[in-house]
Amino acid sequence: MDAIVHFKPTDLDITVEAGLGWEALNDYLEDYRLMFPVDPGPGATVGGCVTNNSSGTNATRYGAAFANVVSLTVVLADGTVVRTKKRPRKTSAGYNLNGLFTGSEGTLGIITEVTVKLHVKPKVERVAVVPFKTIKDAANSVNEFLISGISLNAIELLDDKMMKCVNDSGETTRKWTQAPTLFLKIGGSNDEVVKSTINQTKEISAQHGSLDFQFASNEDETVELWSARKVALWSTINQGKLKNDDIQLWTTDTAVPISQLPRYLVEVKKTIDDAGLENTLVAHIGDGNAHSFILYHPEEHAKAERIVHNIVKKAIELEGTCTGEHGIGYGKIDLLEEELGLIPIDVMRKLKLALDPHRILNPDKVFRMDPNKKLE
Amino acid sequence: MDAIVHFKPTDLDITVEAGLGWEALNDYLEDYRLMFPVDPGPGATVGGCVTNNSSGTNATRYGAAFANVVSLTVVLADGTVVRTKKRPRKTSAGYNLNGLFTGSEGTLGIITEVTVKLHVKPKVERVAVVPFKTIKDAANSVNEFLISGISLNAIELLDDKMMKCVNDSGETTRKWTQAPTLFLKIGGSNDEVVKSTINQTKEISAQHGSLDFQFASNEDETVELWSARKVALWSTINQGKLKNDDIQLWTTDTAVPISQLPRYLVEVKKTIDDAGLENTLVAHIGDGNAHSFILYHPEEHAKAERIVHNIVKKAIELEGTCTGEHGIGYGKIDLLEEELGLIPIDVMRKLKLALDPHRILNPDKVFRMDPNKKLE
Ligand SMILES: Cc1cc2nc3c(=O)[nH]c(=O)nc-3n(C[C@H](O)[C@H](O)[C@H](O)COP(=O)(O)OP(=O)(O)OC[C@H]3O[C@@H](n4cnc5c(N)ncnc54)[C@H](O)[C@@H]3O)c2cc1C
Ligand SMILES: Cc1cc2nc3c(=O)[nH]c(=O)nc-3n(C[C@H](O)[C@H](O)[C@H](O)COP(=O)(O)OP(=O)(O)OC[C@H]3O[C@@H](n4cnc5c(N)ncnc54)[C@H](O)[C@@H]3O)c2cc1C
Repeated sequence: MDAIVHFKPTDLDITVEAGLGWEALNDYLEDYRLMFPVDPGPGATVGGCVTNNSSGTNATRYGAAFANVVSLTVVLADGTVVRTKKRPRKTSAGYNLNGLFTGSEGTLGIITEVTVKLHVKPKVERVAVVPFKTIKDAANSVNEFLISGISLNAIELLDDKMMKCVNDSGETTRKWTQAPTLFLKIGGSNDEVVKSTINQTKEISAQHGSLDFQFASNEDETVELWSARKVALWSTINQGKLKNDDIQLWTTDTAVPISQLPRYLVEVKKTIDDAGLENTLVAHIGDGNAHSFILYHPEEHAKAERIVHNIVKKAIELEGTCTGEHGIGYGKIDLLEEELGLIPIDVMRKLKLALDPHRILNPDKVFRMDPNKKLE
Repeated sequence: MDAIVHFKPTDLDITVEAGLGWEALNDYLEDYRLMFPVDPGPGATVGGCVTNNSSGTNATRYGAAFANVVSLTVVLADGTVVRTKKRPRKTSAGYNLNGLFTGSEGTLGIITEVTVKLHVKPKVERVAVVPFKTIKDAANSVNEFLISGISLNAIELLDDKMMKCVNDSGETTRKWTQAPTLFLKIGGSNDEVVKSTINQTKEISAQHGSLDFQFASNEDETVELWSARKVALWSTINQGKLKNDDIQLWTTDTAVPISQLPRYLVEVKKTIDDAGLENTLVAHIGDGNAHSFILYHPEEHAKAERIVHNIVKKAIELEGTCTGEHGIGYGKIDLLEEELGLIPIDVMRKLKLALDPHRILNPDKVFRMDPNKKLE
């Protein structure tokens, strides 16, 4: 289930079996300077990416899985095999079944084959690493990038604690300023375009009080600078394990409208700090999506749960979501109800029962099949 | 039903009543240098754009309606009012109801309010007009733009006959070379970036035998150059009416995988020419989507219908679609069956019946409610 079925480089699409890993797919595409832009956790499959509507650091430029599906082969609960579309890049032919199956978390069908859009890798791409005194300064700078129409391929934020963790891990060749830091990917079709964009980005950052502006002048340095972003999660786990082998990690995945992110992040960090739990923060700041990594001892589970609930509640109050990219699963069923109310979930349930009346595909995932179950 | 409900410029989104026109919306956004990128026919509403998954000249850069919906308010057949999402830019919270309602052509619910993503207008944007000897040369040039990672905001093709029509109409201030012509929008965050991209585009065009390369050096010229693209459809109709007041126009809307477009377009033009029907062609070539405008006399209706069927059949053979952006309506129900087969349509029917068991919303649009009706 991990074969490449049809590769059509000149159509900018590829058809693969759903079990192929997103990393293997990108390794395969490397020689063609093409890419599948979704970059979730290591080991995830392309089918998993689609069924969870995954994304990652590239979504701000290329969209989540949802924006990159051309066609799906899906086995329904009754064994029917559906091919949702042919291979046009754009179509209004009937209901958008791609849009429905993408993000359905295996509750509507088993995805067996996926045709995805490929993107041409920028001819030139450089990484800039820009520390700021405060998250607010960093966020204001991002707002200005966006409003200036500067085309950035990734806009990521690591907080001061995360930068410290990365330093402590010793897993990158440099030592970093321990301050809220933007990691930017700046791409273009030639050196001139990229250089001009870097200069503009640097200027705006300086206007917002950047403490420094390092950027890669070649591909090796680009990889080196990005490495700090890449080790972020692991360095937090390692840091925790050093202190206590039992330590647990809770990852949040809230997203809020982008203008709300700075004040939201400040509040989130305060909430966790006040509870006395160690934490670091990574945000896909260009999409308003943030992950707090919260370390806790097993006996602190209830406390961690309460904190996380408060963080999600706050995101919902700001018209955001309990999950920007990880999905609902079993764990966030109640949070989804808080977020959307019961009516949209009832619509989802009707769709589910229409396609899976015997409830055999991931029943009680995303929402409860029996809406009254909680009350019993 | 055409009010602006919430405008959130710093979140890059706006909530409007579904009856607001897409042109009025863009007029409103002009002062903020923001835009709603979907640009279908004049007079269309934002709700109509969403329910038909419309697009137009900007889709190659900003996606169709589908990619630009944040949240919808929908009245279902039983009167229930659903708000699909809150306002995060990215979310994996439950089924993607936006994706399902977008493109459902009013068969699943009445859309009353829409929150859409807004895009920042490029700080600088210039139009280039590039005639080629053949459509194939133009298409090869487009392929090379794409592969070079040049970021173009629109990639449109008008054929030689369309350029002649535009000239004959006298509706633009210039006279154009009567050859297959690319209309490109080249944008960026500063003059330097745009200039460098124009030069690269010019070079690639020349390598593929461009006959000329005109580009706008200021905003007025940009509007002037784009005007030829804008009058395309009307000029065909006018040309027809001049000869015969009874003349009818049939617009096709096929899309094929992008590498197939050049040979497909050549075949399409030959098919219509061979039938002795006057025609012009406009293609959203960056998305593989093409419209032939076919002129015919009322008594030639059957012939025109047969020709159009052949054009669609050919698109489907090439793994394309009978509709890139206009939707199925009543007219393309059989073509949708040819394109996708009966199984996906059966899935659509199940979804429809789950949400509208009494079949009151646009019944028999997109597909027949009774799958056996055709046989009777
Ligand atoms: C370290 C780490 C970092 C991560 N970072 C990110 C990130 O940046 N962005 C992001 O979006 N996610 C991230 N994730 C989450 C995760 O990687 C994604 O959700 C991923 O797409 C899951 O794919 P999988 O193949 O591992 O699916 P699994 O975990 O195996 O399954 C997940 C769900 O999908 C269903 N499923 C799987 N395959 C199919 C199929 N073929 N058909 C139907 N249903 C199926 C399963 O039933 C299950 O409900 C991260 C996870 C980890 C561990
Ligand atoms: C000259 C011309 C050029 C065009 N160019 C393009 C183009 O470049 N790209 C493109 O994509 N399209 C194009 N179109 C097609 C058309 O403009 C689009 O399909 C448009 O989005 C339709 O919107 P409308 O408001 O006019 O809908 P209508 O035509 O009024 O309705 C279309 C369908 O949508 C349903 N509907 C309308 N509003 C709602 C609602 N609020 N809730 C539920 N259902 C609803 C109706 O029941 C009907 O089935 C063109 C059309 C013309 C005439």
